[in-house]
Amino acid sequence: MRRDDYLQKPVKHIKISGALTVDQLMQQFRNSGSFGAGRLAKACDVYEKMVRDEECTVFLALSGAVVPAGMRAVIADLVRSRLVDVIVCTGATMVHDAIEALGGHHYKGSWVVDDEELFKYHIFRIYDIFVPEEDYVRIDYQLAEMYREIAAKRKGERLSSDEFAWELGKRLKDPNSILRAAYEAQVPIFIPAVRDSEFGFIHWLHASQENQKDVLVLDAFKEVPRICEICSKSPRNGMIVIGGGVPRNTVQSAAIASKTGMDYAVVVTMDRPETGGLSGSTLKETVSWGKVKGEADKVMVIGDALIVFPLIVASVVERLGSGFARVPYLRRLQADGGGSK
Amino acid sequence: MRRDDYLQKPVKHIKISGALTVDQLMQQFRNSGSFGAGRLAKACDVYEKMVRDEECTVFLALSGAVVPAGMRAVIADLVRSRLVDVIVCTGATMVHDAIEALGGHHYKGSWVVDDEELFKYHIFRIYDIFVPEEDYVRIDYQLAEMYREIAAKRKGERLSSDEFAWELGKRLKDPNSILRAAYEAQVPIFIPAVRDSEFGFIHWLHASQENQKDVLVLDAFKEVPRICEICSKSPRNGMIVIGGGVPRNTVQSAAIASKTGMDYAVVVTMDRPETGGLSGSTLKETVSWGKVKGEADKVMVIGDALIVFPLIVASVVERLGSGFARVPYLRRLQADGGGSK
Amino acid sequence: MRRDDYLQKPVKHIKISGALTVDQLMQQFRNSGSFGAGRLAKACDVYEKMVRDEECTVFLALSGAVVPAGMRAVIADLVRSRLVDVIVCTGATMVHDAIEALGGHHYKGSWVVDDEELFKYHIFRIYDIFVPEEDYVRIDYQLAEMYREIAAKRKGERLSSDEFAWELGKRLKDPNSILRAAYEAQVPIFIPAVRDSEFGFIHWLHASQENQKDVLVLDAFKEVPRICEICSKSPRNGMIVIGGGVPRNTVQSAAIASKTGMDYAVVVTMDRPETGGLSGSTLKETVSWGKVKGEADKVMVIGDALIVFPLIVASVVERLGSGFARVPYLRRLQADGGGSK
Amino acid sequence: MRRDDYLQKPVKHIKISGALTVDQLMQQFRNSGSFGAGRLAKACDVYEKMVRDEECTVFLALSGAVVPAGMRAVIADLVRSRLVDVIVCTGATMVHDAIEALGGHHYKGSWVVDDEELFKYHIFRIYDIFVPEEDYVRIDYQLAEMYREIAAKRKGERLSSDEFAWELGKRLKDPNSILRAAYEAQVPIFIPAVRDSEFGFIHWLHASQENQKDVLVLDAFKEVPRICEICSKSPRNGMIVIGGGVPRNTVQSAAIASKTGMDYAVVVTMDRPETGGLSGSTLKETVSWGKVKGEADKVMVIGDALIVFPLIVASVVERLGSGFARVPYLRRLQADGGGSK
Repeated sequence: MRRDDYLQKPVKHIKISGALTVDQLMQQFRNSGSFGAGRLAKACDVYEKMVRDEECTVFLALSGAVVPAGMRAVIADLVRSRLVDVIVCTGATMVHDAIEALGGHHYKGSWVVDDEELFKYHIFRIYDIFVPEEDYVRIDYQLAEMYREIAAKRKGERLSSDEFAWELGKRLKDPNSILRAAYEAQVPIFIPAVRDSEFGFIHWLHASQENQKDVLVLDAFKEVPRICEICSKSPRNGMIVIGGGVPRNTVQSAAIASKTGMDYAVVVTMDRPETGGLSGSTLKETVSWGKVKGEADKVMVIGDALIVFPLIVASVVERLGSGFARVPYLRRLQADGGGSK
Repeated sequence: MRRDDYLQKPVKHIKISGALTVDQLMQQFRNSGSFGAGRLAKACDVYEKMVRDEECTVFLALSGAVVPAGMRAVIADLVRSRLVDVIVCTGATMVHDAIEALGGHHYKGSWVVDDEELFKYHIFRIYDIFVPEEDYVRIDYQLAEMYREIAAKRKGERLSSDEFAWELGKRLKDPNSILRAAYEAQVPIFIPAVRDSEFGFIHWLHASQENQKDVLVLDAFKEVPRICEICSKSPRNGMIVIGGGVPRNTVQSAAIASKTGMDYAVVVTMDRPETGGLSGSTLKETVSWGKVKGEADKVMVIGDALIVFPLIVASVVERLGSGFARVPYLRRLQADGGGSK
Repeated sequence: MRRDDYLQKPVKHIKISGALTVDQLMQQFRNSGSFGAGRLAKACDVYEKMVRDEECTVFLALSGAVVPAGMRAVIADLVRSRLVDVIVCTGATMVHDAIEALGGHHYKGSWVVDDEELFKYHIFRIYDIFVPEEDYVRIDYQLAEMYREIAAKRKGERLSSDEFAWELGKRLKDPNSILRAAYEAQVPIFIPAVRDSEFGFIHWLHASQENQKDVLVLDAFKEVPRICEICSKSPRNGMIVIGGGVPRNTVQSAAIASKTGMDYAVVVTMDRPETGGLSGSTLKETVSWGKVKGEADKVMVIGDALIVFPLIVASVVERLGSGFARVPYLRRLQADGGGSK
Repeated sequence: MRRDDYLQKPVKHIKISGALTVDQLMQQFRNSGSFGAGRLAKACDVYEKMVRDEECTVFLALSGAVVPAGMRAVIADLVRSRLVDVIVCTGATMVHDAIEALGGHHYKGSWVVDDEELFKYHIFRIYDIFVPEEDYVRIDYQLAEMYREIAAKRKGERLSSDEFAWELGKRLKDPNSILRAAYEAQVPIFIPAVRDSEFGFIHWLHASQENQKDVLVLDAFKEVPRICEICSKSPRNGMIVIGGGVPRNTVQSAAIASKTGMDYAVVVTMDRPETGGLSGSTLKETVSWGKVKGEADKVMVIGDALIVFPLIVASVVERLGSGFARVPYLRRLQADGGGSK
């Protein structure tokens, strides 16, 4: 590279002279273009490209307390408007969704609090959010009943986690529920560690109430080819990762196993790369594996997803405008009677 | 509290005047007693208490790249000497163990590297570690064959992840293997997100080679009561968490579901609490849930586990001395012909 | 506290159904009210209160690369509209301002780059920003000349860093310069570590060109009573801290020394509390010192200031509307002919 | 690079089979060689090289609460044994040293505490350390008296911060004091932001007690050529940075201004690079500036300095053995009657 090549794009300074829409501010961040602001602006651009690409399947990987944090309606809306095509998440995320779907709530609290008193009061704390135990107990019994119904209906068939999620979604009536919205929009929800959540303990309750032959069975491996097939059929794939952990790893691994590699990638996390954990690993590193393509549009934003993700969504929704309607490739494929990549 | 109560324990300054053993330095950290050094010294104390408590079951939760990082022999030794009674880990951890057990290696590398070149060379990068693809391919075929054998032997029985881990351990001959050591020592290894790892893709390969009725089935929920029973039978329980994610959550949730709550807890992580994710959540927060008891001996060390955990192990091994032999409660219980808490 | 007290405020879920202004999104964050989003919404509220409080002096503490990052015009505008009454910053911040005031630029770059090549090209890197050495050389000579003029004018008087900053501001003509805006608006800029920046090396150059008696002298301690007096005269004080380091410490220490204690505080940082450094210390900790009042409106946002601070400013500017004009207490006091608290 | 070049150095697994000295563990970390452990092992090697290099000047940059944390004696010993040749630090570091030198203490406390109660009790908190206000008051009066003496002795001469530090060291009798040890060993201590600490408020007290002509004056810029000259006279320079902030910046800037560039560098910090702040910036980035040479032996350890730095010191002290005596280059130069590089 010549010297001049490094000095092509002067930073344009941000100007805030009155009310700005979220996207107007993101456009300014694109012009300043550096540090977190530059990465955030790029993340908006990459997500916009994903959803405008009619041949791209958009994966949303969710970990952490996104539902308690108030992102439930945002995600349900993304599902309904097909700005997300596949969800991969922790069990807890969908447990939190089910809690609210069945009338429970998450409450604004504080992290400077007497946790032993909370324990006595049967109130659970998630940083500065409180959830009363009765909201968990309520879903324990109602979901155990759903497990019974699902097992009866599927007659001994072993379910994958995405089949399980749709069976739950079908039985939840709350229109703001992510599980419900995903069922209605036929957006798959994969929960690779489904056992590691209240869903696992509800299963224990359910199993204790039934004859062994009537117990719902989830097959840990059944989903593997299912998510890979989605990747391999799509001409292009993109991912948005909130946090990290198993959801991020599952999406990225599907991209290897299907011999595709993501074409677009946005990761929002506070985790660090230096310890070698997957959650903080850079997108550059993913290229060595073929998880993300070297030439992919990709960016990692270091920040609190509960600030950053709504900014990205608000910016992209504003850009798309009210007339935008998305029919994802796989849906069109189904409508056309199938086919392969 | 009276004013004087706050001013009881002056910091004793660390003195390094010649060669020190690891534990001698940790003793000095206990005397200085503040910031990371104070927490690390306490972590050594808590782990020592756990292993000296003959009625305590010690859970080790592993996430991140502990095996590539060179901790494989340390963990296998902890298993063999029964300083760990139960392991809960990511799939990747045991995949990495199997890679080395079958002759593969992890290589010291660098994070300042051309990842597109690595991709062309079929070399995978984990921060500053490299793994050649052929080491993965080798386990793909050898493990697929083991899957076939296990399925044949178990004749359609659905396995839990810990049964699966022992079946693998039985078939791996490398004495330095964690899977092998755990099988020999009858230390359970739970892998709640087993599907989210090469184990999942090996299953796909295996399933493609067999008739459907001969395919190995892992039951996602089968392990739930198994791990809870261990907690509930032990008079006391302790956990050491490296990283966070599903392994930490699984151990903590077992402590709730079994209505026990950990009596001892050491967490080593770089994750932050503020985003609400489980991995960075404080031990104080776990008290509200009953995951860890309010009165438990507990400490969270903010640091790189690959530095911190060997220090803890070295310090405790030094304190225990060569004559120390541990027979865990559950083993004695079995020897006595069972019984309940 | 009774159990019900903990469960008063259910999280209201964020809804993004079309274009939102920045403040509309911040209002939604206030309603969801948790994790980073809740803290950010509170930060907007606290800053709004500060500027609407006619008896409050607003301190802005700046560290890190805020000018290279594109925040120069935002800060100059805050100064001009008196939404900031006092700046405390690193030397580098004002060096960066002077670079742009004298025709230099910061350039958008990348952190994945060959730094040895940059060195050969005399291009300096600040994470993903590039600055050519000639822009530094230019200010070296022009500022050395200003030093000469200032020394000649002040005739051996020893200057404090804020006097020095105004002398520079007077000589810089660029209307977008923070130094210029502060001089015009008579907003003090304290630079407690002024020597630790290009200003120090320019001084060396200047001193080499002059007789010793004609050399500009900055008195390290002269500013101490000056900043304390501002605190002590103001009925109330508030601070906004970007980053940490010396600027944060200087503002907080002024609040102790003047026996006031901040009434409002917003800190935006990525630094951690656990290592005991000032930059990551919690606002709760500052209460023990009297740096911030126990009853103060205060919040710490964990995040990249280059994302978070523009959001706060945009939200507050939107709330204030175009008709808002602020005359700070100390200005009114001067207009009234002085007086004390 | 050829494929094989990437796969040269297999990770050797750590083995802990009995008591290990600190350096024995560090040797194992060198063999595992990855993540934090690899970096820490390299840091030990780099520091060893620095002190064994008879033509290297070793700079130690200190920020954060190293003295309250119990590192005071370690640093004083490094100074006395000339394993450190120059200290650059925050004002607070030397204030904490003076507090202990004059009979005060830092106390082990907790961060889960009622800070408003501490405020009422006049106890200051530094994360999990407490300091009673009376220990500050004591130094206020005793140091103000020293300021008076120094001013009288130096008769209107303006001091640099390193001259000031030696004047204090001369007057402190505590042999464990860093200030005292540095005075005795003639190790310069630069405090670029000396005004931003209790030293500044003591000056205010002192100035209020004296006639203006008898007030001690510190010249902010006087130290600049002094530290640069040390760099430029030394055939080689090395730095160890604890934390970041002004001390790190001052050392690195001296290396530019003296047109040298560090030959060795160890940085221990928890700060992140992404926000563009100096404290978290990578050593790779410093190369573009010429602060550190491209070919330098350099490593950044991400971790709590209060854990990491004692490990480095203990490891290197063990390697050097009891017979090792270091005479730094600049001392030999002085003994030889001066000279230049």
